[in-house]
Amino acid sequence: MSRKSNRQEILTKGLRFVHERGFASASVRDIVEAAGVPQGSFTNHFASKEAFGLEILNLYFANASEVTRQTLRNEALPPLERLAAWIDSSKTGVSVSGQCNGCLLGNLAAEVADHSEALRTRLLEIFAEVQAAVTECLAAATHTGDLPQTLDCNRLAAFIVASLQGANLLAKVQGSMEPVERFKQILFAKVLR
Amino acid sequence: MSRKSNRQEILTKGLRFVHERGFASASVRDIVEAAGVPQGSFTNHFASKEAFGLEILNLYFANASEVTRQTLRNEALPPLERLAAWIDSSKTGVSVSGQCNGCLLGNLAAEVADHSEALRTRLLEIFAEVQAAVTECLAAATHTGDLPQTLDCNRLAAFIVASLQGANLLAKVQGSMEPVERFKQILFAKVLR
Repeated sequence: MSRKSNRQEILTKGLRFVHERGFASASVRDIVEAAGVPQGSFTNHFASKEAFGLEILNLYFANASEVTRQTLRNEALPPLERLAAWIDSSKTGVSVSGQCNGCLLGNLAAEVADHSEALRTRLLEIFAEVQAAVTECLAAATHTGDLPQTLDCNRLAAFIVASLQGANLLAKVQGSMEPVERFKQILFAKVLR
Repeated sequence: MSRKSNRQEILTKGLRFVHERGFASASVRDIVEAAGVPQGSFTNHFASKEAFGLEILNLYFANASEVTRQTLRNEALPPLERLAAWIDSSKTGVSVSGQCNGCLLGNLAAEVADHSEALRTRLLEIFAEVQAAVTECLAAATHTGDLPQTLDCNRLAAFIVASLQGANLLAKVQGSMEPVERFKQILFAKVLR
């Protein structure tokens, strides 16, 4: 393979490996083996494991942003249907190879927020972008009259982003997407009514 | 130190180290260094790192159960005040050495639920016990008339346990307990009203 495709293989297979096994658990050797490239490739392309971590985080977020574009930002749907579609997308998004591996954002937050300032800072930015997309969608619902105009959309969006992370985490422990479905139902029945 | 106190040191200092740094990141060497005991002590007392993980999880849960006893199960307080006190306890409980290290249950769920069946199973049991304590408290609130008698207490308890995990996770990323306070406020203002 060319240098460029080695780099791509390390990122796509490495992302999958880390999502399934955790970041700290994954050695550089595991990652290059998963990618099917020589060990030297890793150091050719990434200054450190933390640098690799930042790149897979960005890759994961790029995929998640595409889902956001198709759901939360899909103006063909009424705002609250977009929100529901976005929450539903968690149910497939967190299931790599048939398992419930949780959301990579939450997994990395739990694992590395304490000891990699670079990853913590990037996670903070990403969560803020996700929250902004949810805020926009809730604001659209206040314009259509589906939610009260006095709603503090940003605060409620922060609650939704955090609670969905919790639901994804419990889904991972239980090996079932039930916590995500329950979160959605209670959110719509109680918080957004 | 005696054999017994070496074991205790490994557990208490090891729990703290894992809570601050993550389970996969913590090597056996890190753990014995944190405990100030010879490396051989670890293998004398624990069959594997997973066995050690189960013991610190049980130790953490024993501490958390004491907090539950003083809050959720404190019959001197009205039920919903107990629930609020339990959520507030998260704000101190997750802060080891002044940092927001998250809840160890959530951290381990994110890190190891995929690749240690023993730890995943124990986490599942512990989350079920926490959920049962919240269910009991909500049921008590239905008896006092603070919540409607028709409430599905168990389902709402599952939502609360998961959402609080999410709030703790975001608190860890943000280095601030604001997500936990926001969760509590929205829970009481919208879900439990």
